[in-house]
Formats: sequence, C-alpha cells, structure tokens
Amino acid sequence: MTTPADLRGPLPPGSTVGILGGGQLGRMLALAAARLGLKAHIYSDESESCAFYVAAATTRAAFDDKRALARFAGTCDVVTFEFENVPEDTLRHVAQHAPVAPSADALSLTQDRFSEKSFVTGLGLPTAPFRNVETEADAISSFRTWGTRAVLKTRKFGYDGKGQRIVGSAEDAARAFRDLGGAPCILEGFVDFAFEASVVAARGHDGSFAAYDVARNEHENHILRRSTVPASLTAKSAQQALTLARHIAEALNYAGILGVELFVTGEGKLLVNEIAPRVHNSGHWTLEACAVSQFEQHIRAIAGWPLGNPERHSDAVMQNIIGNEIEKWIEMSGQSGLHIYGKRFVRPGRKMGHVTTLAPRGTD
Amino acid sequence: MTTPADLRGPLPPGSTVGILGGGQLGRMLALAAARLGLKAHIYSDESESCAFYVAAATTRAAFDDKRALARFAGTCDVVTFEFENVPEDTLRHVAQHAPVAPSADALSLTQDRFSEKSFVTGLGLPTAPFRNVETEADAISSFRTWGTRAVLKTRKFGYDGKGQRIVGSAEDAARAFRDLGGAPCILEGFVDFAFEASVVAARGHDGSFAAYDVARNEHENHILRRSTVPASLTAKSAQQALTLARHIAEALNYAGILGVELFVTGEGKLLVNEIAPRVHNSGHWTLEACAVSQFEQHIRAIAGWPLGNPERHSDAVMQNIIGNEIEKWIEMSGQSGLHIYGKRFVRPGRKMGHVTTLAPRGTD
Repeated sequence: MTTPADLRGPLPPGSTVGILGGGQLGRMLALAAARLGLKAHIYSDESESCAFYVAAATTRAAFDDKRALARFAGTCDVVTFEFENVPEDTLRHVAQHAPVAPSADALSLTQDRFSEKSFVTGLGLPTAPFRNVETEADAISSFRTWGTRAVLKTRKFGYDGKGQRIVGSAEDAARAFRDLGGAPCILEGFVDFAFEASVVAARGHDGSFAAYDVARNEHENHILRRSTVPASLTAKSAQQALTLARHIAEALNYAGILGVELFVTGEGKLLVNEIAPRVHNSGHWTLEACAVSQFEQHIRAIAGWPLGNPERHSDAVMQNIIGNEIEKWIEMSGQSGLHIYGKRFVRPGRKMGHVTTLAPRGTD
Repeated sequence: MTTPADLRGPLPPGSTVGILGGGQLGRMLALAAARLGLKAHIYSDESESCAFYVAAATTRAAFDDKRALARFAGTCDVVTFEFENVPEDTLRHVAQHAPVAPSADALSLTQDRFSEKSFVTGLGLPTAPFRNVETEADAISSFRTWGTRAVLKTRKFGYDGKGQRIVGSAEDAARAFRDLGGAPCILEGFVDFAFEASVVAARGHDGSFAAYDVARNEHENHILRRSTVPASLTAKSAQQALTLARHIAEALNYAGILGVELFVTGEGKLLVNEIAPRVHNSGHWTLEACAVSQFEQHIRAIAGWPLGNPERHSDAVMQNIIGNEIEKWIEMSGQSGLHIYGKRFVRPGRKMGHVTTLAPRGTD
C-alpha cells in the first residue's frame, strides 16, 4: 500500500474538490463541500449528471480522456470519486496531477472481489467462504468443495446484484460462468444470514477514525430499500463491527469514508461481505440524524480537515425511492427528510431519491 | 395586497427556482432547492457571488437590466429574492415573466420602515412609538413629542445598523437627519427592552403556516452575533410571538419564509421591530436542529409544496463568523455545524460563516 496522496495541510475555504462521477453521491458530496466553503468540480461522462447542477465547475468527458483528466485535475486541490467502478487507470492518471483520496490502491483492491476478500481474510476477519474461478473447470471444482448452494459473482464491475448468479449444482455453476461471459469470478458459499448491516466510517490522512452507528439494511431485488439505525445488534457485535471497519481502514491506509457491508448470522456473528471505498447508500440517514453527515465527513477526511463528531442525535430510518416510485413525488412531498436527486431520466432500479424519518433517540 | 403570484400546482423536480441576490442566503436557498430536486438560477450584480458556486445556472447583470431580468425570469418556474433591498421595480418587472414569491407588495411594504410600522400597528400589534420624518422640522418636532432618547432611521435601505443614529436632543435629531442625507426617515422612541428575539415562520400559497421556535438574539455593533433556541420566553409570550407572525403573514397574503424581529421587555411584552421578507440569519440554527430547515421551508412555500414540519429535535446556539474571524477557520474546523460561505473577500462586519452547536432538547 502507498500512503494517501500528498496533501499540504487542510485545504482552505475556496479550494476545489474534484469528484469523479456525477450521480447522487457526487451531488451530495458537492453540497457538503459547499457547507465548508469548498468548491466542487464534477467530472462525468454523462451529459445528464445530476451532480452538475450543484457544482462550481463541471467537465463532461470520457474516463479515459487523459487530456480532459489532466485539465480537470489541474483545477482541483484534491480529487475523489463517487462510484467504485471508476477505472483504476483514470485515478492513477489523475494522481499524477493532484492528490487523490481514497488512493488508487484502495480503489483497485476493492474493485476486485477476489483481491478484496483475500485482503479481508488476510486481516483475520471473517467472510463467506470463497474461491477464485477463472475457468469452467474452476467453477465446477469450486462448487464441489462445498457441494451446496453458492453464488457465482464476477470479480469486477458488479453492483446492485448485477453480475451474480445463484447456483445449486456444479452444472449450474458452469452454466453461470458462461452466462457471465467467462469473466474472472469468485464462487462464494451461500451464507444463511439473519440480516445485513453496514458500518460507514471515516479515516483521516492523520490516522484519525470516526464511525457512524451500524445500520441494519434491507434489500429488494438486490437494491437497498431501507436502512434502520439503531440496527438492534448486541453492544458487543456493534463494537466488533466498528473495530473491523477500523482494522480495514488502517490496513488500507485509507483516507475518506468507507462502507463495510456485513452479514449478521443468527448467532450474531459478523461476516464481511463487501467494502465500498466511498460514501455509502446505507449512510444517507446521517444527513438528518447527525450534525456531520457522511458526505461532510468524507470531504473533511480527503481535504485534511479534522473529522467531525459522528454521533447521532436521533434514531433514523432511511428509505430509497427507486425507479418509477418517483412519479409519486407529490404524495411524498409533505415528508421531512426528503431528498430528490433531480435525475432527468427514470429507469427501473435507478435510485431517484430517499427519505429519512427521524424519531427521538431510544435506548440502543 | 394582491395575491401571491400565480403558480400552477407544486413545481415538479427538475423545475428551476430563480433567486435574486447571490449572498449566503441565496447560497443556502440553492442548496436547499437541490435537496428537493429543484435547480437554482442565481441572479446577482456581483461577479464574486458565493451563491454562484452551487447553482445550476447563473446570471451576472445589474438589477435594472430589464433584458437580463426578462431572460432570467424566462428560465425560472418561480422567482424569489434573498435580500430585502432588491429594488421593487426589479421584482415587478420579473413578475411580468414568472411567478414571484414573496410578492412585490410584501417586499415594498417591508422596505419602508414607515409603511412597515404603520402596517403592523394597523393590525393592532405593538411596536416602538414612531413618527414619520421628512424634514428637519419633522425631526425636531417628533423628538419633542417624547423628549427623550430616540433613534432616527432612514425609511429605506438600512441593514445591520446602517442608516441609523441614536439622538438625545432635538438638535441631535436635526443633525442626524442632515447626516443621513435628508432622506425620508422615521424617529423611533427608544425601547428599553430586556432582549431581542425573532420568529421565523413560513406561509404557503394555500394559507398553510408553520413557525419555528422563537430564537433569542444577541447583537454586536448592530450585527447578529448569536441566536439561542429555546429563547427562554414564557410559554405565553412564545405563543404570542407565533400568533403575531401568523397575523402578519396572513395580512400580507404572504408566501415564503418571513422573519419577525421582536423586542422583549422586562415584563415579557413583545414589540415588533422589523419584518424581514426572506430567510433570516436568526433561523440558520434550523439547518441542524430541524429535519426541515428554513431554507428548505422557503423553497417548499414558494414552489407550492406542502410545508415541512418545523419541530426541532435539539436545542441550538448559532453563532456568526464575522469579518476577519474567518481567518481563524483552522481553529474552528473541528466543529460540527460549521458553515463557511466561501466568500472570496473579507470585509469588516461581513458575515463569512456560522456555527450551530446542538444540545439534547431540554425543557423549554
């Protein structure tokens, strides 16, 4: 691991934070940067990027346009990214012209399920059992290791359940491998978890660390539907979740927010599912329930500012508005904690907004 | 009073809110519009407007440039303003091309201290005693009515203590009138108040009304230094403050947020000092302490959306960062609830940012 890119002290107000990616995460990062007096420059390859509408500067260009990337980086005092599928080469190229955080190493490690899971188990942290699958023969032999239900996942470029197949036989596994285009995969043993949870945490360039309370997550069609805080973990499991997030962040020499997705078994055991090297959908509740949101915290971390207090003053439930649900915006318009991302086009499964409902803080 | 400008139903996400003025209030309004999926178009006559950095569109032009105003209004689904000294003619011209809220009538009434105070007393609400002063002779005779300390204030274009003189004699009053350029003034009887307070409240096009809790305000050199909520008013006075704000909003057939500044006497009596037809510095604490801030509430009101819940979940103290205090931003950078406006130039008395500190909600 290299150290996080070199940043000369905390960035003064008026500095520019570059953000690769123009979706809702980039948009909310830009809004958070503005709170601190920082400008945002959004770089996206899509003309209809919803983050463009709230940024001081915008660049529309391809992620492999090295000239555009250099020009963009030249205007930025630090550069970050809002989606983990930004090409590693893009980030490495930008890093020649401006400090980047999180680092290209952290990005590339988490982009590949095999290297990610190998890294996690290497730290002594538990994950679902997994095997590297590079050929049909690998798929078959890996399945036979456990001989029970498993999930074949492409090593790269998966999100929201894309690039995954549940398999129930060695034949299934071989067929799924072909279905997924013969791309490098992992076969993951099926985990019979009680529920999913996540930790959203920040690490500063100086090694400081701050974690938000664990959220319990519910998915529908592989897309996050709802995050609830508190997660109703035991105090011991909650502490363990924070500790493992810290362990991961330190091993990555990380700067910024990272999301660690967890499976929680019926016995309260935690397994690391995925590491997201960015602000995370399951942390949107922090916008309402904490004085410093995950978006502001990320900006603080990458800009070399002190991390803010991640304490929450309220209990919270965050619910995503997905696809054509946004057409019912009038019915939702009276709700507090409503966020609409201003995306011009609706597509099935597309995240169009979210609503966070607060309740007085109960006993956890 | 005319009715608020015609708005065809709630504005759908993707619509554009025009904002006249490019200061921190415009900036925070633009950020709030973004939460609801609305775009902001900022119109300002200053090239270094801090609201420009967070807006989907910007126009830099003079406030009397009718062509630029028409072009601007043509891109907007509703237009509002962020400072009460926007020329009335500007707003009337814009209103020919787009719905405006608050109305030009509400603006013009509150721009003139004499018409404003006459309106308030006409509603049967208490103010400091005042007299219209159009000549030196008026200044002298008005002073003699009370024969005690008074304040001469220009009728128009005053803010942060500008255009005011404390006078202790008839001669003083005459001199002050000359000092203020012979502009139309009012002479206001000096009120020996215990403290200042304010109500920030919203009224929707549909007559709905929502008020935030009263803030207690402390000024330094006529500039707001600190707002504290709760204000430690008696329950009766607090209720009275909300009632008079509602009375004023209804009489103005108002749409949007208005701030009503109050003097609170030692006996708990409330006098209306000023009406601000816009989001108000003493309402900045709502960004952290309420699920719906005054900025979002204003956008909701002018865009024809339902008003949000103005309840606060926490106690709050908001403190302004004024002039060169911003140079100590590093010392402040660890605080939660920090807002820096990203203004390029520091000037004495200029509001550069603010910090809101939350505490668990106590008994009021």
